[in-house]
Amino acid sequence: MTKYIGILTAGGDSPGLNAAIRGVGKAAVGHYGMHLIGFRDGFRGLMENRTAPLEGGQLSGILTLGGTILGTSRDKPHKMSVGGKMRDMTDAIVSNYHDHRLDCLVCLGGGGTQKNALRLKEAGLNVVTLPKTIDNDVAMTDITFGFDTALGIATEAVDRLHSTAHSHHRIIVVEIMGHRAGWLALGAGIAGGADVILVPEIPYDVDSVATAIKRRSRGGKPFSIVAVAEGAISVQEHQARLAALESKKGRKVKDIEVEEPEIVYADRTIKLAQQLEQMTGLEARVTILGHLQRGGAPSAADRILSTRLGTATADLINEGRYGVMVAARGESTEAVLLEDVAGKVKTVPVDHPWVESARRVGTNFGD
Amino acid sequence: MTKYIGILTAGGDSPGLNAAIRGVGKAAVGHYGMHLIGFRDGFRGLMENRTAPLEGGQLSGILTLGGTILGTSRDKPHKMSVGGKMRDMTDAIVSNYHDHRLDCLVCLGGGGTQKNALRLKEAGLNVVTLPKTIDNDVAMTDITFGFDTALGIATEAVDRLHSTAHSHHRIIVVEIMGHRAGWLALGAGIAGGADVILVPEIPYDVDSVATAIKRRSRGGKPFSIVAVAEGAISVQEHQARLAALESKKGRKVKDIEVEEPEIVYADRTIKLAQQLEQMTGLEARVTILGHLQRGGAPSAADRILSTRLGTATADLINEGRYGVMVAARGESTEAVLLEDVAGKVKTVPVDHPWVESARRVGTNFGD
Amino acid sequence: MTKYIGILTAGGDSPGLNAAIRGVGKAAVGHYGMHLIGFRDGFRGLMENRTAPLEGGQLSGILTLGGTILGTSRDKPHKMSVGGKMRDMTDAIVSNYHDHRLDCLVCLGGGGTQKNALRLKEAGLNVVTLPKTIDNDVAMTDITFGFDTALGIATEAVDRLHSTAHSHHRIIVVEIMGHRAGWLALGAGIAGGADVILVPEIPYDVDSVATAIKRRSRGGKPFSIVAVAEGAISVQEHQARLAALESKKGRKVKDIEVEEPEIVYADRTIKLAQQLEQMTGLEARVTILGHLQRGGAPSAADRILSTRLGTATADLINEGRYGVMVAARGESTEAVLLEDVAGKVKTVPVDHPWVESARRVGTNFGD
Amino acid sequence: MTKYIGILTAGGDSPGLNAAIRGVGKAAVGHYGMHLIGFRDGFRGLMENRTAPLEGGQLSGILTLGGTILGTSRDKPHKMSVGGKMRDMTDAIVSNYHDHRLDCLVCLGGGGTQKNALRLKEAGLNVVTLPKTIDNDVAMTDITFGFDTALGIATEAVDRLHSTAHSHHRIIVVEIMGHRAGWLALGAGIAGGADVILVPEIPYDVDSVATAIKRRSRGGKPFSIVAVAEGAISVQEHQARLAALESKKGRKVKDIEVEEPEIVYADRTIKLAQQLEQMTGLEARVTILGHLQRGGAPSAADRILSTRLGTATADLINEGRYGVMVAARGESTEAVLLEDVAGKVKTVPVDHPWVESARRVGTNFGD
Repeated sequence: MTKYIGILTAGGDSPGLNAAIRGVGKAAVGHYGMHLIGFRDGFRGLMENRTAPLEGGQLSGILTLGGTILGTSRDKPHKMSVGGKMRDMTDAIVSNYHDHRLDCLVCLGGGGTQKNALRLKEAGLNVVTLPKTIDNDVAMTDITFGFDTALGIATEAVDRLHSTAHSHHRIIVVEIMGHRAGWLALGAGIAGGADVILVPEIPYDVDSVATAIKRRSRGGKPFSIVAVAEGAISVQEHQARLAALESKKGRKVKDIEVEEPEIVYADRTIKLAQQLEQMTGLEARVTILGHLQRGGAPSAADRILSTRLGTATADLINEGRYGVMVAARGESTEAVLLEDVAGKVKTVPVDHPWVESARRVGTNFGD
Repeated sequence: MTKYIGILTAGGDSPGLNAAIRGVGKAAVGHYGMHLIGFRDGFRGLMENRTAPLEGGQLSGILTLGGTILGTSRDKPHKMSVGGKMRDMTDAIVSNYHDHRLDCLVCLGGGGTQKNALRLKEAGLNVVTLPKTIDNDVAMTDITFGFDTALGIATEAVDRLHSTAHSHHRIIVVEIMGHRAGWLALGAGIAGGADVILVPEIPYDVDSVATAIKRRSRGGKPFSIVAVAEGAISVQEHQARLAALESKKGRKVKDIEVEEPEIVYADRTIKLAQQLEQMTGLEARVTILGHLQRGGAPSAADRILSTRLGTATADLINEGRYGVMVAARGESTEAVLLEDVAGKVKTVPVDHPWVESARRVGTNFGD
Repeated sequence: MTKYIGILTAGGDSPGLNAAIRGVGKAAVGHYGMHLIGFRDGFRGLMENRTAPLEGGQLSGILTLGGTILGTSRDKPHKMSVGGKMRDMTDAIVSNYHDHRLDCLVCLGGGGTQKNALRLKEAGLNVVTLPKTIDNDVAMTDITFGFDTALGIATEAVDRLHSTAHSHHRIIVVEIMGHRAGWLALGAGIAGGADVILVPEIPYDVDSVATAIKRRSRGGKPFSIVAVAEGAISVQEHQARLAALESKKGRKVKDIEVEEPEIVYADRTIKLAQQLEQMTGLEARVTILGHLQRGGAPSAADRILSTRLGTATADLINEGRYGVMVAARGESTEAVLLEDVAGKVKTVPVDHPWVESARRVGTNFGD
Repeated sequence: MTKYIGILTAGGDSPGLNAAIRGVGKAAVGHYGMHLIGFRDGFRGLMENRTAPLEGGQLSGILTLGGTILGTSRDKPHKMSVGGKMRDMTDAIVSNYHDHRLDCLVCLGGGGTQKNALRLKEAGLNVVTLPKTIDNDVAMTDITFGFDTALGIATEAVDRLHSTAHSHHRIIVVEIMGHRAGWLALGAGIAGGADVILVPEIPYDVDSVATAIKRRSRGGKPFSIVAVAEGAISVQEHQARLAALESKKGRKVKDIEVEEPEIVYADRTIKLAQQLEQMTGLEARVTILGHLQRGGAPSAADRILSTRLGTATADLINEGRYGVMVAARGESTEAVLLEDVAGKVKTVPVDHPWVESARRVGTNFGD
């Protein structure tokens, strides 16, 4: 019997979303003969029943396109602003799912989307998810699509900043996305040859950073690049958080909400630059990459990844395997239970091979 | 008799500086048999007699290199911090020039450098300058090197931001360099298809901008890109400045110092985004391109421009023509008197063909 | 009275075509309230009355798109293959023009298109043309759109080939487009730092080239990049052509058909590499850039150029000025009579500033 | 006791070589306090005792540099042209190794280099190798450095060719490197959305290809991109090879030498295009990417890979583990015995997940 599939993209946009939609669609419709319908702007569009046709020419020419042709939003099924109030709209979503006689809903998103998809699974829907985020912090998958593209953009930025740092004998502090996990700052830091890399997983001592920069300066290199993840914090901040935790017994560290507005990250980054300027006597400048990191055409590697996760999704639906995220596992894919993914964050282990390698080439991590 | 040339780079770094140094050097040394010596870090290095050899292999492989192999600084001959005090070091510079038995000093820089070079001319030195700046605001030349590269970088950024603006139905306000002249924001705005372009030369009315964005939104495009030059100001700010002028009789508008710290530009840009968010009901986000715009390999066009300005410099020195800036004039070059360049800023005429063309495709300038 | 405009793209595809279509369309339809219709695949589509709507959303999102959304062909109005025969289809074209009640036909194309447009002008149609070609060889305009993009691509290719030339101590001969004019090879050669540049305008002596390469090798640089335009020929070939001319009295040099199939260019390039390998004792390799040079997103400079030529086209039509090509003149545009453009080729003057500059940095031109 | 290390690069140049040299060097010298010396131009430089210092500033600024600062050659220790004759120079190499009192020789190269390194191991030397090749065909490693960069370049080329194919309604046949393994053509084909992908591992039937292209054309898409690996062959050629094998009993298929001069590949590709033109009635054009694929700055992913393989090499030497290749294994590295790598080629399994995924989105493999 012909299957009917719905698809939506949720959370922050990420390169590769359209390539993944195309992969799902070409495999589902072209290869398996299923039907496919898109919902606009994430879970909100599913709730409001705003659809987008995907069986005409809509899948042509989108492989290289940034963003998402379906639109996206950060709305959550169980907590959506409707008429000015936050409401649980799960029932409306379930109802629309059935009205469309869907056999499966495909959700492309990051960590939050995995949680929302699990809720819909628990509400009885068949769901399959794909792991998307430039932060690479979704659990149980080798990698997420969007990461390689963002890595390329951030690295190119670090390359460019070297010109200015070197010519003006400056410290350049470049803020890279990643509030909970430091993958992007770590990767772009290694690839761009940053002298200092600061990530959320390794609280930093600003004295150690300043010392490393002064040592370089004395050795004839009066300039340094500091790659700092949004969520990187000093040892002092880290301990203040732990102390705050102490006072809220029963909660675990990972429960602490560490995601903050972008402006908070920016302020912290600017303050760090000011400290380093005072401590080293070198001029310091700040660059905040921001949304540049999520836009534009996906890299070749991301297009391949998105395509194969997309076609694997259609394979799973064809087999009737639901309630899973399609994870990248080496050159293959693997279905992992949403229960094993949702609510988890893949952070950088402090002894990860990338960290060890960066230390070998002389990178300072502020510890 | 063999001529001896000194060369330095001053002001903010800009793509094409090394290509220009190479052009001067290969023509002067290789073609004309002159001698060439570099001074480090702009006028400061000339004052402190810190030199860099340029007749070995130093000119090989630098055509594509960003920044400047000589280093740069914003120090001015007549107002340089020495021993914690601001002093006039012109005499020391003149003295070093003569100690090196120089026939000519080549200065690569922007508007400030033209002024400083004129002072050295007035102090009796033979100088030839080249016009460098990503802002394209040096007078009397068709174009400055660095501009085309920065234009490409800023345009690519606008391209990337379209993904996010479109996918999230947002206003993206992107701040582009240019505190006195809007060339870069204008160019990248046209090339990137920005919906609104704000430049210093055309004070904007935030109501007009919001109206344009709302009209687009009603027409089915609930997203907009606003390209704003650092120095763009609202009609209100513009009038406040004029009023301030009134109270300082005898000064001309152009005498008013409008260059402000980067942080002031950023604050103004953030405030604009907040206003637009409130006035349109659409989410707004800010991206500040900052130093990204000045780094990295020069574009092909900039390499050609830098090379031909560089070789023309050697031609002029060979002919004994000093006291001039080598300007780009069509596909050729022209020597213009430093007196005709120094202290002038090439701003965007409000009826410039680019502005007119942008208006034709529907771009809003906030007026 | 509302004007009706037709538009088509003819000849080889070139980056910026879509940006120009958008410029014409947004200005004509959005600004002036005219009507616009596209014809598919150049003059053939006009003859066959195959149209494309351009007043819906078709002009959105095409600014950055390579190729042409209208399709193109090399068909000529007066010599078109129909039913297996070459026929003059001018009458059919004129008839379709009138059936659509057009006030003007806009033709985007290179040298051939200017000639074809002139014929239609002579047949009584109102035409306005835009100069498009990556070769930059259209007369009476400062520059053509497509050139800057192709220049960037070819330069990046030369940059890449440097890696291999340097690492393997090889001669790399890179063939760059340009059968009649050497602008692209000249520009990419300068920008990429090629050691030898061969263009159609300067017949080369292979001995001179080999000598230059051997001199470099002896000087410690056993590798060289030779940038060769498709149409570059040796002194011997040049003289054979002149002799052939002698025997065809009454014909001018420019009448000689020098455009040959791509494969002929490639064979000549390969033979040149083999000669250089034998004469220098260094390994030689060939890279033929081919169609890579015409594809992909236009550069920022080309998008601006295409946009302003496009909007100027609408301005001219609004004023009722027909029978002209919209030329780039500095930062402005100018209408030039088709009679002054058609049949002419803008070649590189042998003493052009770019050539002189390249010689100054040590480039060999084989002469 | 302080260890002494020699390092060389052999075989075709590949992006990431310099990043790997830097990784080995910074870890060995900076982190472990060893001594490092380079040998020029592969095994030939080791034989001729031509060295390059690597302990000064030579490792700075090379992370992003294409090619290899050490130079490379395809010379083999046991079969090197000396004085016009092919000779076994293993003894000279062993002797130089000992004269330099080396504790280990690090060899960066592809499949051939692994074999040569094994021979030196068998001759008693301590060797450690790294897997480098844009073809990704070295056995026992997840990936080789250079591949991701080449994949990006080839994909960008396919993207560009789409413009022309689409605008002119053509078949574009693009030849991509890979004579024994089709990884690069497969990857760039998927990432670039090629309609047909031909690889050495899947002999193709030209009728099947033509049929697929005609089906597209009838469906309204009169253009197709055919990505063909250098070593792709038709079913007929494949069977001729098998027959040739039959007549040489005792030899295995993998013993057959299938590497041919580049010109043979090009001729075969051109012939394929001609066949498709005749069979489909669509114009066909050929682009041969050639050396473009191996040049220029390494991608971010390749820089990370090269760096971590490089630092892992120093770790192994520190531990005294020799006779191995440093393989990429997930995000970590693993030492594999040279005996398990040498002489093996990692080809694309016909049911590899990438192939399966490509089939799902409608790609034709000519089978």
